[in-house]
Amino acid sequence: MASFDPTQIRALVFDVFGTVVDWRSGVARDVAALAASKGVRVDAPAFADAWREGYRPAMDRARRGEIAWTNIDGLHRSILDELLPRFGLGPVSNEEADVLNRSWHRLDPWPDVLSGLHALRTRFVISTLSNGNVALLVNMAKRAGLPWDCVLSAEMFQKYKPDPEVYSTAAQLLGFAPQQVLMVAAHPSDLAAAQGSGLRTAYVPRPLEYGAGEPSADRVGERVFDIVASDFVELAKQLNT
Amino acid sequence: MASFDPTQIRALVFDVFGTVVDWRSGVARDVAALAASKGVRVDAPAFADAWREGYRPAMDRARRGEIAWTNIDGLHRSILDELLPRFGLGPVSNEEADVLNRSWHRLDPWPDVLSGLHALRTRFVISTLSNGNVALLVNMAKRAGLPWDCVLSAEMFQKYKPDPEVYSTAAQLLGFAPQQVLMVAAHPSDLAAAQGSGLRTAYVPRPLEYGAGEPSADRVGERVFDIVASDFVELAKQLNT
Repeated sequence: MASFDPTQIRALVFDVFGTVVDWRSGVARDVAALAASKGVRVDAPAFADAWREGYRPAMDRARRGEIAWTNIDGLHRSILDELLPRFGLGPVSNEEADVLNRSWHRLDPWPDVLSGLHALRTRFVISTLSNGNVALLVNMAKRAGLPWDCVLSAEMFQKYKPDPEVYSTAAQLLGFAPQQVLMVAAHPSDLAAAQGSGLRTAYVPRPLEYGAGEPSADRVGERVFDIVASDFVELAKQLNT
Repeated sequence: MASFDPTQIRALVFDVFGTVVDWRSGVARDVAALAASKGVRVDAPAFADAWREGYRPAMDRARRGEIAWTNIDGLHRSILDELLPRFGLGPVSNEEADVLNRSWHRLDPWPDVLSGLHALRTRFVISTLSNGNVALLVNMAKRAGLPWDCVLSAEMFQKYKPDPEVYSTAAQLLGFAPQQVLMVAAHPSDLAAAQGSGLRTAYVPRPLEYGAGEPSADRVGERVFDIVASDFVELAKQLNT
């Protein structure tokens, strides 16, 4: 790997679920609210975890072509339809399920995100690079005030991360060489795939992604990233913004 | 055509060249600056007009598959390489030509645009829907402060307007039915194509697009659009924002 020169960076692309927003708390909040309205008791954080856990195998089926390409709203909905009876949350109308499915559009950023992004935006192009679908990312940004210059989504490429085309096409669309683009993520596997396409990498661990005391299975291991930062404000400082 | 109910609109998608930004003045400004640096005299507005005129046939060759799909930066560059000798502007280095080619990234909005977009953004999702490539649209927005929620470009679809897929895919990506999306353009032909895909339409004439006293060849004719507004501030008022 060539030595890292931060002055070559022109754009930052961000993983979103877990890296920018706290999906677990946000989804659990809306699950708990629906359960309360039904007068049933549900372990809402466990529901959120199960929902998130179902996402990877569903996406992999789409990636391997075993099911037609489906966006995340669609994958989330099919997982939700299995989880509702399993968790005893019902009966739920189709419209109520749709509203709950869109809890993924209503997630809050981690506390450092807005000030970090505003600082980074003064010097770099900042964009999502997420498996979330466009409408989800746009609605999330509008609600939370995320100041993206551009919303790039796997949906535009009909490919999901970690497929290499997602990373290389993102750099190309932004008009930069891969080594001018810094992928920011809390997930080492995402960063490793970005490295494979020639992007630079910033690892921002989010130890609370799976709740207190629940470490992620996605470990750094032997991997080396260009930047490690504790949060987005720290990342902006390391990039001299 | 079903009667128009503005309360059904959820998103506005905007043509950019001519509708949002004044390409003629911006391109002519940079052509004149380069000519001055070379000590040559060039009719800069005529250069800008010729550049813009070359864009449609070049794009149509790409649309018909006669040349490989090429983004607007690429099409602009090949037209520029023909225009430089024709207008006696030279010798020009490859780097100088690249910088001039990016004059299309440095265009200024019409005077009403920023306040109109900020008003519209409070109630609607606002996005580009332009044949301009993503990098061009992102750079333009960052320089001019255009507050897009999303940057949608023909480049993402590898299709150019007025191909119907561009309009229908844009609505789909934003998560809305075509009739919930309002296409805003200064060009009746663009709006007619959007109507063909089921979008709603707002015509915002820009009488100075081709300079004073140079009417566009693209006429309204018998066409009827849902909204006609004199500028984006007026458009926001008509949509009750």
